[in-house]
Amino acid sequence: MVGDSIGTKLVSLGHKVMMGSRTASNEKAAAWTNRNGSLASNGTFADAASFGEIIFNCTSGHVSLEALQLAGRENLQGKILVDVANPLDFSRGMPPSLSICNTDSLGETIQRQFTDVKVVKALNTLNCQLMVSPGLLKDPGNIFICGNETDAKAEVESLLRTLGWEKIIDLGDITAARGTEQVLPIWVRLMGKLGTPMFNFSIVS
Amino acid sequence: MVGDSIGTKLVSLGHKVMMGSRTASNEKAAAWTNRNGSLASNGTFADAASFGEIIFNCTSGHVSLEALQLAGRENLQGKILVDVANPLDFSRGMPPSLSICNTDSLGETIQRQFTDVKVVKALNTLNCQLMVSPGLLKDPGNIFICGNETDAKAEVESLLRTLGWEKIIDLGDITAARGTEQVLPIWVRLMGKLGTPMFNFSIVS
Repeated sequence: MVGDSIGTKLVSLGHKVMMGSRTASNEKAAAWTNRNGSLASNGTFADAASFGEIIFNCTSGHVSLEALQLAGRENLQGKILVDVANPLDFSRGMPPSLSICNTDSLGETIQRQFTDVKVVKALNTLNCQLMVSPGLLKDPGNIFICGNETDAKAEVESLLRTLGWEKIIDLGDITAARGTEQVLPIWVRLMGKLGTPMFNFSIVS
Repeated sequence: MVGDSIGTKLVSLGHKVMMGSRTASNEKAAAWTNRNGSLASNGTFADAASFGEIIFNCTSGHVSLEALQLAGRENLQGKILVDVANPLDFSRGMPPSLSICNTDSLGETIQRQFTDVKVVKALNTLNCQLMVSPGLLKDPGNIFICGNETDAKAEVESLLRTLGWEKIIDLGDITAARGTEQVLPIWVRLMGKLGTPMFNFSIVS
């Protein structure tokens, strides 16, 4: 769902996008390609990682490291990886807990395991429709980015602006992913309370 | 600081407030009493717990359980305990981690250990000046409450409205304290980024 949403938006903005999956013949990925015209394609995680200049990790947090292994270290090397995933653990039922938290985060774990990749944590604090259409909210609120590489963050920030985001807060190095990933527990509660995932956080002062 | 801020505001609204400390002769508590006139007094944690109809836990999270033990189960019994504390752990330096999180929270731990007390988690997601003076922000944003007892939450919500809060979100039972306490890591990063603790979260839709 997250990859579909982001991929569709990026194609609409004129980017070539390859959707990666475990298998080159993944049905949902093929359907996405068919819906999105000549700029869209699909393949394995390795195909997509090799194809892309910027990689979006839109997998579920509990399989992200495996998916990135399948993508291949050599295909990711030197590239920006926008990590949208959250380490949600549904194994104990609802509400989910986090499989990594407090003194570590998924973003940091990915950065440690893929030292040649420029990990930028972004967009993980809101629903995937809103990620690419902030204008759906009267007040879109803020999004947060963090990562160790200033240039990579600047490039991701530019891309996020083309998605419609104006209020982007750079929280610092990748350890700030602890902060944005640990927003998920209150996000889940708020979704239950508000009865919709169509909301966001705005920092007011 | 938190107790001083909340106590001062409550006195200004006409409430009798007793500030509790480890010792009845605590100098800061005595100074607070002197500053705040005839409605203010101070004593031991047990004195304050016995005196109050509603108890505010404004201790540091890592000593909250000890302070509540000192307050005395018999003095707290049946009362509303507004838990403002956060389980911040500075033992590994800055930024702090949390001593309890993910599948548990300080609010829940207090509720489990003091089953006869009506724990309402509230006000723990913002600076203590803002807790009692939301009007200091152009847009005050939201505050969150949670707890197992509906009547207790209604009473706390009424009290919070007298502090100036309008947008109060009830997140459900006390397990939602996991959500509000885990907001602290991003709060700490935001304070570093913004260079001030004078901000809040607003839920926009």
